[in-house]
Amino acid sequence: MSFSPLINNLISALRCLPGVGPKSAQRMVFHLLERDREAGKHLARALEEAVARIGHCQQCRTLCEDPICYLCNNMSRDHSILCVVETPADVMAIEHTGGYRGVYFVLMGHLSPLDGIGPEDLGLDLFRARLEQNEIKEVILATNPTVEGEATAHYLAQIVKGKGIQVTRIAHGVPFGGELEYIDGGTLARALIARAPV
Amino acid sequence: MSFSPLINNLISALRCLPGVGPKSAQRMVFHLLERDREAGKHLARALEEAVARIGHCQQCRTLCEDPICYLCNNMSRDHSILCVVETPADVMAIEHTGGYRGVYFVLMGHLSPLDGIGPEDLGLDLFRARLEQNEIKEVILATNPTVEGEATAHYLAQIVKGKGIQVTRIAHGVPFGGELEYIDGGTLARALIARAPV
Repeated sequence: MSFSPLINNLISALRCLPGVGPKSAQRMVFHLLERDREAGKHLARALEEAVARIGHCQQCRTLCEDPICYLCNNMSRDHSILCVVETPADVMAIEHTGGYRGVYFVLMGHLSPLDGIGPEDLGLDLFRARLEQNEIKEVILATNPTVEGEATAHYLAQIVKGKGIQVTRIAHGVPFGGELEYIDGGTLARALIARAPV
Repeated sequence: MSFSPLINNLISALRCLPGVGPKSAQRMVFHLLERDREAGKHLARALEEAVARIGHCQQCRTLCEDPICYLCNNMSRDHSILCVVETPADVMAIEHTGGYRGVYFVLMGHLSPLDGIGPEDLGLDLFRARLEQNEIKEVILATNPTVEGEATAHYLAQIVKGKGIQVTRIAHGVPFGGELEYIDGGTLARALIARAPV
């Protein structure tokens, strides 16, 4: 009750992708084999090359095939403001806003003692070394507004304060375009506490 | 406002997969690069091998890396009954029912003059040659119950009848477990016309 070995193998290999179950893996295999073998070849090459060559930027730790990523390399950016985020996707989300001209530090995760993820896994040695270069004037903590993200931000804030550098956290509040009626109580309570004069 | 070239390349390569948009491609890339590079390597190899080696069974045209697929090669099956389906996935769907012991012929599509898919694209030369071997006693037409599937079944029925072989079509009717209230009118009308004595 199964396909040929190579097809079965490809179906199970595709299931390593997040959000891909047995049915969609099967659909992908037939699509590639019946309609688009060139795209399949191209995908195989792109995957192989990416896995082999992509490492981390030596300055900000984002995923990148060069020693220093293009954001860290961009001298027209403000290298005195450092925004700390959890993932490379967060860097892109902030870049898409078009409102930030500083540089980044990517933790590649958050503190999570239960999963065995401690400060050393988040590259905090590199972070400390960066702060000691006396170039940074402000550190913006943009970890996720989750329990782990908040705990990580708190931990990082202590380090930054210890170096006598200004540290800020992105604002929490009601999302733009949201309706108060549908916003969770925790968010609304924080929005009230953090109210600002008009 | 984008990732490094290799990451962008992998994101766009993943979008060749059906159902994968820019956001899910991005999520897949980060998942593979951050958490599971081994799986990424394995997927690259599986894809390359599948694209290079998988062809069609010389008897039934299903996707397969051997000259003859394991279903056609199985001599304990009834080679006098031939079930015609549109795709290899349909073969698996029928195999999963566990109720069919004959062999298959896979059209790899359906007649669709608007898309330029004619009889020669569905391997009907091979189909005719198969019928002429005087081994087949019944042809079951199991193309999809769609306009194109029905048209294809009609076309095939003429060929099979021309050879003096019995030809049947899978039953149309109300699906098992369905509620009459929610079944479309066309299906219900056909179920009434094709009513059987109890």
